[in-house]
Amino acid sequence: MLTLYHHPFSPSSRFVRLILGEYGANYEMHTINPWERRREFLMLNPAGTVPVLIENGGTPVCGPYAIMEYLDETRGYAMGDRRLMPDHPELRAETRRLVEWGLRKFDDEVAGHFVRERIYKQDMPRSVGGGEPDSAILRVARANIHHHMRYFGYLAASRKWLGGDRLSFADFALAAELSCADYLGEVPWETEENVKAWYARVKSRPSFRPLLSEKMLGMPPSMTYADLDF
Amino acid sequence: MLTLYHHPFSPSSRFVRLILGEYGANYEMHTINPWERRREFLMLNPAGTVPVLIENGGTPVCGPYAIMEYLDETRGYAMGDRRLMPDHPELRAETRRLVEWGLRKFDDEVAGHFVRERIYKQDMPRSVGGGEPDSAILRVARANIHHHMRYFGYLAASRKWLGGDRLSFADFALAAELSCADYLGEVPWETEENVKAWYARVKSRPSFRPLLSEKMLGMPPSMTYADLDF
Repeated sequence: MLTLYHHPFSPSSRFVRLILGEYGANYEMHTINPWERRREFLMLNPAGTVPVLIENGGTPVCGPYAIMEYLDETRGYAMGDRRLMPDHPELRAETRRLVEWGLRKFDDEVAGHFVRERIYKQDMPRSVGGGEPDSAILRVARANIHHHMRYFGYLAASRKWLGGDRLSFADFALAAELSCADYLGEVPWETEENVKAWYARVKSRPSFRPLLSEKMLGMPPSMTYADLDF
Repeated sequence: MLTLYHHPFSPSSRFVRLILGEYGANYEMHTINPWERRREFLMLNPAGTVPVLIENGGTPVCGPYAIMEYLDETRGYAMGDRRLMPDHPELRAETRRLVEWGLRKFDDEVAGHFVRERIYKQDMPRSVGGGEPDSAILRVARANIHHHMRYFGYLAASRKWLGGDRLSFADFALAAELSCADYLGEVPWETEENVKAWYARVKSRPSFRPLLSEKMLGMPPSMTYADLDF
């Protein structure tokens, strides 16, 4: 029995939901608002961050990297051709490089800003930083996304999937991050046809469906968000 | 043949040097100033960050997480009892949680600020942000370190090593980060005796020696830095 503590618009949490879906794992979900820093949740993960995965009441597996490796260690071999981590150490390193690009670099420079300013701050009390989005921060994120799109475009043009010949964790890390920006209409799809075509392939996978049907109260998704032929 | 691209005061680079030392790997080092964003280095790692490890001219292994996993995948089994990654998936998750605590959380909230403000900015041209340290940022880092010390103190009091019964990557990630703050005299050792005792054990390992003998021009290390009985 797997239990996932997540936030629906945390890009790292989305990454974990996607790879749980790909690995065919059933799980129960609990939504956590990380800014609340509730005591019961800090007992599970003293860092106070999502996602956290617990299997059969065991030690909490905290953070997207540890969860990715845990899922692969406990279920990867049984996945055969659909395993999301390559076999060769150098290809594994390339997968991990791009996972980190998505979950850290793209998140720090782009998606994390959008999610915080446009989603989290609506739900956060003013006392912990809630309120109106900071337009200067949004401007920076909107400028930064173009550099990333160009790099993803280069990868998508030269490889079958972003990490190489095979679908891997890298595709889901980058797609999870982009999906949050896309919900808010913040992805300039028209600038990179190859990224759009790659994302359409990832988005049409069954693991993506639960994410596409979720909506935030008072903030409907962009026109492209749930459209598989955007 | 291993080649490491690093910066002597990048905590993640130090982590990799320590674990290379523990795994008995010989390597060549090249110093990179990440703020220069040199074209030749961006060809190796488009993110422009250190550390990067290359084995026999192969695919660059970028970032401390990917390097840690790569070293363990290619050399871990041969290490026997001295392997730094536990065998059980839940214990591995705990090791990875603490590695991320060090290299991301502690770095974002404490060590990264000290290194940038007090070391990197001395070498950076003003055009890319060099100059005097920002005292407001240093004040925040000096307040934050106490929370981390308390948590490390809790771990050190309840476990033999920070990750559990055995020395692991977690100890080196946290020690690498602390060593940068310690060079600058920014670690309040007197507040947490258990952390000090744990750090003294890690610091006395042969893998630590090369780090302790390095000095930055014009910025001598703190009194405690190289002293094994600090």
